[in-house]
Amino acid sequence: MTMPSAQGGTTNLLAFSRERGEGKHFRAFRVLLTLAACVALILPAFAQDLRGTGDLGLVIERAKGSIQLLDTTKKVALGRVQGLGDLSHASVVFSRDARYAYVFGRDGGLSKVDLLTGAIVKRVIQSGNSIGGAISQDGGIIAAANYTPGGVKFFDSETLELISEIPARSEVTGQLSKVVGLEEAAGNRFTFSLFEAGEIWQADLSQDPKNPKVTRHTGIGKEPYDALVTGDGRWYVAGLFGEDGIAVLDLWHPERGVRRALPAYGRGEQKLPVYKMPHLETWAVSGNLAFIPGVGRHEVVLVDISTWQKIGTIPVAGQPVFVMAEPTGRRLWVNFAFPHYDTVQVIDVESREIVHTMKPGKAVLHMEFTPRGEHVWISVRDENRIQIHDTASFAKLGEIPADAPSGIFFSSRAHRFGL
Amino acid sequence: MTMPSAQGGTTNLLAFSRERGEGKHFRAFRVLLTLAACVALILPAFAQDLRGTGDLGLVIERAKGSIQLLDTTKKVALGRVQGLGDLSHASVVFSRDARYAYVFGRDGGLSKVDLLTGAIVKRVIQSGNSIGGAISQDGGIIAAANYTPGGVKFFDSETLELISEIPARSEVTGQLSKVVGLEEAAGNRFTFSLFEAGEIWQADLSQDPKNPKVTRHTGIGKEPYDALVTGDGRWYVAGLFGEDGIAVLDLWHPERGVRRALPAYGRGEQKLPVYKMPHLETWAVSGNLAFIPGVGRHEVVLVDISTWQKIGTIPVAGQPVFVMAEPTGRRLWVNFAFPHYDTVQVIDVESREIVHTMKPGKAVLHMEFTPRGEHVWISVRDENRIQIHDTASFAKLGEIPADAPSGIFFSSRAHRFGL
Repeated sequence: MTMPSAQGGTTNLLAFSRERGEGKHFRAFRVLLTLAACVALILPAFAQDLRGTGDLGLVIERAKGSIQLLDTTKKVALGRVQGLGDLSHASVVFSRDARYAYVFGRDGGLSKVDLLTGAIVKRVIQSGNSIGGAISQDGGIIAAANYTPGGVKFFDSETLELISEIPARSEVTGQLSKVVGLEEAAGNRFTFSLFEAGEIWQADLSQDPKNPKVTRHTGIGKEPYDALVTGDGRWYVAGLFGEDGIAVLDLWHPERGVRRALPAYGRGEQKLPVYKMPHLETWAVSGNLAFIPGVGRHEVVLVDISTWQKIGTIPVAGQPVFVMAEPTGRRLWVNFAFPHYDTVQVIDVESREIVHTMKPGKAVLHMEFTPRGEHVWISVRDENRIQIHDTASFAKLGEIPADAPSGIFFSSRAHRFGL
Repeated sequence: MTMPSAQGGTTNLLAFSRERGEGKHFRAFRVLLTLAACVALILPAFAQDLRGTGDLGLVIERAKGSIQLLDTTKKVALGRVQGLGDLSHASVVFSRDARYAYVFGRDGGLSKVDLLTGAIVKRVIQSGNSIGGAISQDGGIIAAANYTPGGVKFFDSETLELISEIPARSEVTGQLSKVVGLEEAAGNRFTFSLFEAGEIWQADLSQDPKNPKVTRHTGIGKEPYDALVTGDGRWYVAGLFGEDGIAVLDLWHPERGVRRALPAYGRGEQKLPVYKMPHLETWAVSGNLAFIPGVGRHEVVLVDISTWQKIGTIPVAGQPVFVMAEPTGRRLWVNFAFPHYDTVQVIDVESREIVHTMKPGKAVLHMEFTPRGEHVWISVRDENRIQIHDTASFAKLGEIPADAPSGIFFSSRAHRFGL
């Protein structure tokens, strides 16, 4: 049973009840009660009470175009929000008050979802094809990276009204490029990469958001396909699809330009079969070390970020997709591309040894740590569930049904850079 | 005009109105309106609407025994909560949902304050004299460090019911010690120091919170007076009042025991006049470097935390009290003891140069960065105000009246270690 909410979102109350394991009759009664409450208050079921928003989150249900809202304290789903369009490769950022999630859909849809009420407060179709977005340091500006037409659009985070846009037309080739790897930087600046043109651009919205000041770095390498900013906001790193190596920009010193590093990092001359290009946004950084997924290889690569030199590798069970550091930086959790996508391995940073291997189920797509790292939430797509594990004992603490879950995003991301 | 709230807290509505700069008549009308609302809903004025809690905070008004709730998005005070007892040297931790603040008073009072309603949900007098506290990694346990009687008490974060306690009786001297430097560690563990006995104890509540497992490190140095845990939860560092040097415990390897470091750090043999022992909880860490206040000296000391060796000093305007890193780690903000307590200096981490000096007013007591570092809030005690500055331009963006403000605490601390 799906019912529209006042603001245009939809809430699947029956699914919500089912997740709470309630009996059939009580469920029917509850649905009726909630229906009545919705009519009375014009708000979905989970909108009634004051509550904190620091322990909320959501999971993407890619096939359905829906999300489920999550409570990391009670370890439950709070309800489902539907009508978000194509959520394949969806990404999410959060408002600075940790109340609203901005969901970027593949179809160019940008939706502002209220984590308290489950309502879609606002939704715009802002392009034909989008790959993700970012939120300014002060929380006032939402930026969306678009494939079609290639460029970046900036929106008021309150109203989702368009503030300005930057078409990604290279001055070298004259063509529009797809924009990838859009990341926020200090001072309401954003950095992004142009896939076809092989450029990295910086947009400065600190003075006049309606007229972004753009700095262009050209010839940075072939086909940048994704990028990351380190947690301190200093290093912008783009991975290259068209050749080996990475492109690195020091955002503390953009005047020094983009430099190339890790010349042997990539698919190599023999073009190893790569089942999935690794995600970059969550490269693990612990002290001065970065731990990055080997491309097409069964290894995690260690890089010293003070020199951007490779200093070692750690052999793992498959081709890594995400290499994620616990918030304490003490251990890394790694998942893998097909055919090893049933496996998660945990690496001790200090000894660089694998301390645990587990098989949560078919198609582990994503992992998210609770803000202080006591638990990890793992989406297991083909088993239609999220698993919650204790990071110290690895014990499974619970699971939540979800429809082919992919990305999990917690609201504490509101307070951190480059996520 | 002060009125009691339903749960025992009090809310100064007039002061709240005054801070909003409203006219006299409107103010009277507003107070009446709010009174009516309070009678109707049995909740203080600011309890009406759903809102996110990621951008909330509070400032301690030490002389009055009150706090003001703060909104970092609108840059306003939301209201005053009174009846919190002796708030000299008060400290605060936040619930994992970022809704509740736990305020530790010097008089042994522990108050749970609802940031949404301003109500004191629960208040216990848990000792005769307390110096601060911590919250477990999973948010379930509040720990209070007590001078009288010396020891640590653990409370359920939901109910504030006592779970267990550890009297700080040294097995070497047989006497109770004052407990200082209580910090949480991963896995629902806590670490703290015994002032008179010169010991560091670890309490493990991960298995059975009613029976904490205690590990004692003896002979760690004379009179530890404060301590910190680095942001990654790894290093516990105690400052020594009775001799020079610091005591360092690697919480990843407690079996290696406490070691001494920085033998020349402290008051020295000539016993320099020390106007105020520097606070430790906020030692700035950027990469592998820690920046710590020189004791009795006009300098910031640089320490390599991979070796715990001093590697340099930066001359500053006075005896530093707080040396705090912006969330990006790029710059340090330093305030000073009397007679330089009107000054704040900003240091660029990379060049180690002072890039800005400002004089916000008499008695700068504390500074707090917004979670992603775009602004800093500064409490200027003798001017009875908080000043809000842009961290990039240093420009003053606003000020908020406050009665002799001291510590400022934002709810995003809920998600970080060792604060």
